Amino acid sequence: MTRATPSDNRNQNCRHFSLPDAELFYWPAYLTAPAADLLQQQLSRELHWQTASIRIYGREVAIPRRQVWMGEPHCRYRYSGTDFLPEPWHPRLRELASQISQALQHPFNCVLLNQYADGQDHMGWHADDEPELGLAPQIASLSLGQSRRFDLKHRQLECQLQLLLQHGSLLLMAGTCQQYWQHRLPKQAQAKAERINLTFRYIAPK
Amino acid sequence: MTRATPSDNRNQNCRHFSLPDAELFYWPAYLTAPAADLLQQQLSRELHWQTASIRIYGREVAIPRRQVWMGEPHCRYRYSGTDFLPEPWHPRLRELASQISQALQHPFNCVLLNQYADGQDHMGWHADDEPELGLAPQIASLSLGQSRRFDLKHRQLECQLQLLLQHGSLLLMAGTCQQYWQHRLPKQAQAKAERINLTFRYIAPK
Repeated sequence: MTRATPSDNRNQNCRHFSLPDAELFYWPAYLTAPAADLLQQQLSRELHWQTASIRIYGREVAIPRRQVWMGEPHCRYRYSGTDFLPEPWHPRLRELASQISQALQHPFNCVLLNQYADGQDHMGWHADDEPELGLAPQIASLSLGQSRRFDLKHRQLECQLQLLLQHGSLLLMAGTCQQYWQHRLPKQAQAKAERINLTFRYIAPK
Repeated sequence: MTRATPSDNRNQNCRHFSLPDAELFYWPAYLTAPAADLLQQQLSRELHWQTASIRIYGREVAIPRRQVWMGEPHCRYRYSGTDFLPEPWHPRLRELASQISQALQHPFNCVLLNQYADGQDHMGWHADDEPELGLAPQIASLSLGQSRRFDLKHRQLECQLQLLLQHGSLLLMAGTCQQYWQHRLPKQAQAKAERINLTFRYIAPK
């Protein structure tokens, strides 16, 4: 079992944030830089990136990023009024999901990929709290490319955490993070390059 | 021993933040609102608030807040090139230092009080890491009056935490917080009223 514990804070390889109602674990170099470089290039080239639209107050609005929803066939995902059917696994991502499941001792069977062309692309405040993810879902978030600021805020308590998600890093959002906290990827004018983010999740078969 | 532990996060009375290289404990209502009201009025009226100057790059600059340094006679304090001799204890503050020492099971024998007239008064990034405070000092910070945002950032890791310090609240900065993190009270245009902050410390007798 490789799950991090608070004592891992002295281990340069893991940073643990134990917050009211949330546990975060951050590995700044989960992938080596060359492995992260290769993965980013492969995903950027080989996936069918979609500019999805969502319905906001009855209007169809293109979201400010491109995305792919992928995983086991039963992993349907409903997000802002739209049903997403999963693309079948890209072999490299099936392998990566399996490696991360093994490392964190937690199953992951689907992944939402988001591609941010530059600092204008972003994602607003939200939580990964769709019912199909179950109670207290664990979300494993792998970052490739441009470092971007990542904000978390508690829904009731007045506190906010800002992290920098680096190329090759893995962030595990655990505990009741999705229930009590929201997160976002804000716009960043100075961010000029592409970031790809993979959030691995688990949806139980029916 | 009333020291909070991680399990206290389910206790509405204490919020625990276990961060890389720092432990924070926040009690939003350490004092009842009426007790905090009375204390604020008394301190605002009865203390000898000083507009201190500090030397920055050889120039004398008035700091954007008023302050009082108070405690046991041996508690001299050197800050930005200036030596501060402590005022003798105000009876109410001697009593409060004793109560907080008892509650946190840690001695506090001096206190730096800062009075912020409104959101224009502030304090920049710094740590309470003066040598006389020793290694890994525990700082107990009591807030009265206007709620203000309080920021902490790690000196090396790219992460930052923002809290709201409320009327009557107590924040304990513990672990190696002063060694690895800095904190500040930023300007806040919308803050219109006075805040008084008391940071209790311990200086060992020579």
